[in-house]
Amino acid sequence: MTSKKILLVVCDGLSDRPVKEFDRKTPLQVAKKPAMDAIARHGISGVMDVIGPGIVPGSDTAHLALFGYDPYKTYTGRGPIEAAGAGLIMERGDVAFRCNFATVDGSFNVTDRRAGRIKFGTDELASAVSGMAIGDVTAILKEGTEHRAVLVLRGPGLDHRVTDVDPHREGPLLESRPLVPEAKKTAEVLNEFVRRARDVLDQHPVNRNRLRDGLLPANAILPRGGGSTKGLERICERYRMRCGAVVGVTLVKGMCRLVGMDVPEVQGATGGLDTDYRAKAEAALNLLKTHDFVFINVKAGDVASHDGDFRTKVRVVENIDMMMGMILKEVHEDVVVALTCDHSTPVSLKEHSADPVPIAISGGGSRVDGVKEFDEISSAAGALGRIRGMELMPILMGMADRAEKFGA
Amino acid sequence: MTSKKILLVVCDGLSDRPVKEFDRKTPLQVAKKPAMDAIARHGISGVMDVIGPGIVPGSDTAHLALFGYDPYKTYTGRGPIEAAGAGLIMERGDVAFRCNFATVDGSFNVTDRRAGRIKFGTDELASAVSGMAIGDVTAILKEGTEHRAVLVLRGPGLDHRVTDVDPHREGPLLESRPLVPEAKKTAEVLNEFVRRARDVLDQHPVNRNRLRDGLLPANAILPRGGGSTKGLERICERYRMRCGAVVGVTLVKGMCRLVGMDVPEVQGATGGLDTDYRAKAEAALNLLKTHDFVFINVKAGDVASHDGDFRTKVRVVENIDMMMGMILKEVHEDVVVALTCDHSTPVSLKEHSADPVPIAISGGGSRVDGVKEFDEISSAAGALGRIRGMELMPILMGMADRAEKFGA
Repeated sequence: MTSKKILLVVCDGLSDRPVKEFDRKTPLQVAKKPAMDAIARHGISGVMDVIGPGIVPGSDTAHLALFGYDPYKTYTGRGPIEAAGAGLIMERGDVAFRCNFATVDGSFNVTDRRAGRIKFGTDELASAVSGMAIGDVTAILKEGTEHRAVLVLRGPGLDHRVTDVDPHREGPLLESRPLVPEAKKTAEVLNEFVRRARDVLDQHPVNRNRLRDGLLPANAILPRGGGSTKGLERICERYRMRCGAVVGVTLVKGMCRLVGMDVPEVQGATGGLDTDYRAKAEAALNLLKTHDFVFINVKAGDVASHDGDFRTKVRVVENIDMMMGMILKEVHEDVVVALTCDHSTPVSLKEHSADPVPIAISGGGSRVDGVKEFDEISSAAGALGRIRGMELMPILMGMADRAEKFGA
Repeated sequence: MTSKKILLVVCDGLSDRPVKEFDRKTPLQVAKKPAMDAIARHGISGVMDVIGPGIVPGSDTAHLALFGYDPYKTYTGRGPIEAAGAGLIMERGDVAFRCNFATVDGSFNVTDRRAGRIKFGTDELASAVSGMAIGDVTAILKEGTEHRAVLVLRGPGLDHRVTDVDPHREGPLLESRPLVPEAKKTAEVLNEFVRRARDVLDQHPVNRNRLRDGLLPANAILPRGGGSTKGLERICERYRMRCGAVVGVTLVKGMCRLVGMDVPEVQGATGGLDTDYRAKAEAALNLLKTHDFVFINVKAGDVASHDGDFRTKVRVVENIDMMMGMILKEVHEDVVVALTCDHSTPVSLKEHSADPVPIAISGGGSRVDGVKEFDEISSAAGALGRIRGMELMPILMGMADRAEKFGA
């Protein structure tokens, strides 16, 4: 028995609802998509509640579930995901926070939560406070895009269950409080970091120059959304596969790094409508040479949906189909290819929704049902039935002959 | 409301994947099987993850699930199943081990794990050590086929969580160690049994004769795979039904005895390709006169699959169909008849796989959907949807009007 490779393609938010103005069709029903339909025609289809029926998935929790992790047990705030997205490798026991660079006055009142949407210099500011030792804890700060940053606390006895320092609006900066007794030390360290960072940042040349130029100083760090990676077993160990990902958008890139996938930088893969589909296809085909499991995320459908733009979304479907066509042409029929979405984002809603997503799987040991098209309704008639996101990885492992027998 | 009888027919490993060389069809899709199709046509169909999506079931864990037991909670090693298969009735608190008769030298080095594949005399050897008292524990040893045997330890304070004495290869015999503190006594008793059995067996006439004939002596017992039946409520009590089974293959026979079914010996029911299908049909019809729930297992499909033999598997389907035809002719339409498999064993794989199995249920209070054939794809379109193995017994109880109301 030779175990097969797996390619999982997740079209972010591509699943939709019927749109009245377009003959009550969905973008997937309207678009021409021969490659996507070929997967349905040569394989098995179904629909999937990515987290559970009636649960509206976030992109982060959805991807946790799609990778086989229970988001209710492993999802502990955005901090670790953002940290991974920013390239910070978290160690077991670390606690991470999303942060804003902000402007505070002399009494620690937040006067601008985004420091005038600062664009430049946050790398220097972050460096000035990163590495700070607070007792036996080290604070690591890494700038993100614009006013965003990530804080990782590293040391013994930390716990992420603390309240935010970020007041989430203008007004007095908050003291972090422990939500459980075990998190007392973390709250104290966090508050001390915020106080000391204020002193360092206020005097920093970047901020003195900003003041001189009439800009708001980025003289405070506002941590929020603390989380840990406790319980997130690495995906390569869990499934005994070498796993790689082709992803543009930072949040999902973070998810992939967090579970231990290789995530090469792909020139032109932007996570936007302008992403380079050919580059993504080539990167995926390259990864398939060296890796057992390759994951692709295409964000553009979600972007079009958030804009409420049906026609653009149809074009996105056709672009993804072109990418899938390039891939299918090169991929051996032994490779298990799964095509699905992380959640629905109806253009009529401009937000994620709880509607289940279509899924089609071909190649490997796949059965073949009568479904001939990949869309929200056609797929639902398939032999795969209605599955859960967390069941997807085990199902793919089974079809790739990588599952272990339980019993005799 | 009169509660109805239930007949559950499990075709071991009959479920398959499409086979390229046979027009991408499965054996079930190719075979002529009017009786099986009649169950689908007059009833309700679906597919079933016997343990869970992506889980490859063993025949033992699968049958636990099909009988309504959670294998993750109740499956504790093969020992108890083999014991039941050998006809040893386990009591609550007993611990059972699979054993080999083996050859050891004077320093307790295993020189042959199967004592030269000993065929005769193991009944005498087992009797010579069975009943041995070790403190307040009694050791019961029962020979199996060839070099195989089963050891049951009976007494207070036993726990199956100990390591194997069997080194699983030639070399020094191992000391059993407790995996949890509660199992300390069991490990000690087990080691003492192995030492004392060595002394008895070494001097036994059967072994003296073997040595004289140039054969390896069966002078040691190697226990492995300890398990208990803790948590295995008897099926008749759980469902308040008199339950009987028609089974040839030892492992499944053991499962049935273990949960407390009556398992009459059926002349000609071999568990192989040569099994007597008529004898099985007659035995089942006989059991249905006296029992509320009758279970049939036919092993032959699994055997053909392990040989990778598509044509033989098609013939097995047709043989089983003949058996089903005999049964359906005699069975009242009030009897709930369920036809399914314990797992898929694709001929292309020659191993169990995680692919869901087809299921069809007719008779009793069954609904009737549009499915007209019993196979992996047709069944998936049925009104039963995609269910789990552990849900089957409750569903059958419901359709047999044997389920109790929850609430008012």
